Amino acid sequence: VVIVSNRGPLSFRLDANGDLVATRGAGGLVSGIAPLVVDTDTLWIAAAMTDGDRVAARRGRQEARGFNVRTLDLDPDEYRMAYDVVCNSTLWFLHHHLFDLSRRPRFDRPWREAWRAYRSVNLAFAEAVASEAPSGAVVLVQDYHLLLVGAVLAARRPDLRVVHFSHTPFAAPDLFRVLPDDVATVLLEGMAAHVACGFHAERWARNYVDTSEQLLGVVPRTFVSPLAPDPEALAREASSAAVEAAVAELEAEVGERALLVRVDRIELSKNLLRGFLAFEDLLEHHPEWQGRVVFHALVYPSRGALPEYLAYRSEVETVVARINGRWGGDGWTPVVLDQSDDYPRSLAALRRADVLLVNPIRDGLNLVAKEGPLVNEVDGVLCLSPEAGAWEELGTAALRVDPFDVPGTADVLHEALTMAPAARRARAIDLRAHAGARTPRHWLADQIAVAG
Amino acid sequence: VVIVSNRGPLSFRLDANGDLVATRGAGGLVSGIAPLVVDTDTLWIAAAMTDGDRVAARRGRQEARGFNVRTLDLDPDEYRMAYDVVCNSTLWFLHHHLFDLSRRPRFDRPWREAWRAYRSVNLAFAEAVASEAPSGAVVLVQDYHLLLVGAVLAARRPDLRVVHFSHTPFAAPDLFRVLPDDVATVLLEGMAAHVACGFHAERWARNYVDTSEQLLGVVPRTFVSPLAPDPEALAREASSAAVEAAVAELEAEVGERALLVRVDRIELSKNLLRGFLAFEDLLEHHPEWQGRVVFHALVYPSRGALPEYLAYRSEVETVVARINGRWGGDGWTPVVLDQSDDYPRSLAALRRADVLLVNPIRDGLNLVAKEGPLVNEVDGVLCLSPEAGAWEELGTAALRVDPFDVPGTADVLHEALTMAPAARRARAIDLRAHAGARTPRHWLADQIAVAG
Repeated sequence: VVIVSNRGPLSFRLDANGDLVATRGAGGLVSGIAPLVVDTDTLWIAAAMTDGDRVAARRGRQEARGFNVRTLDLDPDEYRMAYDVVCNSTLWFLHHHLFDLSRRPRFDRPWREAWRAYRSVNLAFAEAVASEAPSGAVVLVQDYHLLLVGAVLAARRPDLRVVHFSHTPFAAPDLFRVLPDDVATVLLEGMAAHVACGFHAERWARNYVDTSEQLLGVVPRTFVSPLAPDPEALAREASSAAVEAAVAELEAEVGERALLVRVDRIELSKNLLRGFLAFEDLLEHHPEWQGRVVFHALVYPSRGALPEYLAYRSEVETVVARINGRWGGDGWTPVVLDQSDDYPRSLAALRRADVLLVNPIRDGLNLVAKEGPLVNEVDGVLCLSPEAGAWEELGTAALRVDPFDVPGTADVLHEALTMAPAARRARAIDLRAHAGARTPRHWLADQIAVAG
Repeated sequence: VVIVSNRGPLSFRLDANGDLVATRGAGGLVSGIAPLVVDTDTLWIAAAMTDGDRVAARRGRQEARGFNVRTLDLDPDEYRMAYDVVCNSTLWFLHHHLFDLSRRPRFDRPWREAWRAYRSVNLAFAEAVASEAPSGAVVLVQDYHLLLVGAVLAARRPDLRVVHFSHTPFAAPDLFRVLPDDVATVLLEGMAAHVACGFHAERWARNYVDTSEQLLGVVPRTFVSPLAPDPEALAREASSAAVEAAVAELEAEVGERALLVRVDRIELSKNLLRGFLAFEDLLEHHPEWQGRVVFHALVYPSRGALPEYLAYRSEVETVVARINGRWGGDGWTPVVLDQSDDYPRSLAALRRADVLLVNPIRDGLNLVAKEGPLVNEVDGVLCLSPEAGAWEELGTAALRVDPFDVPGTADVLHEALTMAPAARRARAIDLRAHAGARTPRHWLADQIAVAG
């Protein structure tokens, strides 16, 4: 098996002797998949991100910490254009329906240059796979960064069985049409060149099939295989000394109050703003909660190079400051905005959350919605948006929050906070069963099975 | 036949004697349909807009200028909420895919009040129809303002044959889901209560059917019946003394230069910004056009009560000023931004346009795309977005402009400006044939035929 993704499982740096030292890389995709391939002969091909990664790239395959990694030293300008402009500012926005269409996207000449860079980065990945992959290997290509690798390999290495998996949603056909025709065609042909294309949810697979049929006249092969946390590894991490310390700290902070939690990147699709406004609506229209509930929002900045994310982060900070100024006092801070990206603190919050809010406007899966119930110890209620892919697995056990409906969300939070213990317990058991029904091994087995 | 619409064909005022004086009302829908029903016994039911309209409402049915009109005196606050908040800020944005979803819509408590107002306004309309419509009448309900009239009438007046027609696009199912569930259900049930629902284009009908099937489990009856200008009336208007004077003025202004034209409301869906940027790209990348082409943009403000429209208008003015400042001089103003809403000047521009740009990001039909070719005298080339409903009729004779592709649009403008006379002529003949293939009578006949 060969895994191909933008980020790899290791990050390299040079020590004083000029030797490469590897540490574990970050990122949701990596942390989900990496445990599956550690200590196997799986080769992982990824872009070089750091100077150390680039040295590693020049030295060829690296074996370290149980991984077998080949990093690619791509032209930094080209990589930046492909990653920032095409991947994060176009394809991410497209599939999450985030464009303010009267203004964006604007496919201008600099965008066209970025599109050439995207094709060139994909070609470099494909060439690395072509020269590194053993005969007949199963190649698992990950996400929207690498939609064109399969098409190159279909011509260059027909012996490989190449499967693509999208960790994002897939745009509605009417919105995929926003892309320039030639770009849409190249991307859809690229996807169709795989043995099959996988998604976390039926909805995204259906959108992809409809789009491909309408724009390309091709009905591609798809499969649905939601990723899941590794329950054992998660349980181990959630009981570490660091998490225990964070739980103690959190308990001291929250005291007798009810604890509402969210854990997210500061990301336009995660719907932080309406979440805070719904919490304010709760305080206003269910005043019995004033002083009696704390909203711990463990949200960490990302994609700071994109102005949309800076603006959104600043709006988040402003609305939280306003809510705390208006409602807080007497030793009560209604919203605790924790931007530290501290994993033990996040796990501690998930363990102790009376209510977990996961209200994205559109989300490929949302792993937090599964991790929360698996580590929670107080029969916490999950308030989940049906626009998260995880809804297809968890919807029967969660409370449904409409992500666009602010007072509706407040009412659901109230319902969650006041739910009788027996009902909480019954739902928590259901949630744990659904969230733990699959492990990462199921996901990997699905990819390999579909490769045939 | 009874026509039910938000705006009626007449506007009333009181003269010095306290008598009602009627003048013709404005608005695209009204000007399209009114000529069909003048001097017939068709009853037209519409909201009172002016103080005179409200007096007329109290005095009952009014016959004037060949129309038979019943205006409804609605509670002004309720009407305003229904119209501004639900109709124009929600349903219009929804069907035109205009929401910046990370921030809008926000279904808060004031929105819920507006939604109650929308239902109440629809009920008032339905009651007026119920008490005024002759037995067995065909009732033609127009547009997204009045989606619930049919459902009330189905219960109160089952003898009536009620048909709905949408002059807008219809949202993709994934985006219609943005509405709160109960609201989506009420709207879709309201639409399904009609004998049939009509649209200007197959695409919108398909989106409506898919949405109704996915959210309601109901496959509704639909029909497609694009509206069209009345060629004879248009020819008469286009040769009026006022238009002749405007043509002379325009010719003096433009001189030997090529004339690029657009005629639009200043409307987020019309894509004015990218149109001007494409024109700038033309000047930059096809520099032979500097000083040799003028872009007459006849665009008039609308919905000034909504902040989104004020912001958009200001962006339009800023980008035009920047382009004129950068490129203009020597007696050449590259972009003439005419916000006067002067119908004779618009017709004059359509008569003399070498190229007509119609590049909406999403548009129910776009009548200008049909009016232009019908009155044009210089074999003008139509550059048309496939996202306009009119594309389904005119697409084979127009040049296709991708509304999101700025340099692509510039290249198409260049192609249009340099097209050989024989090719222009052949396309112009085709365009006139397609644009004139239907008249408003076909549209009305379709509505009545479907009513059975």
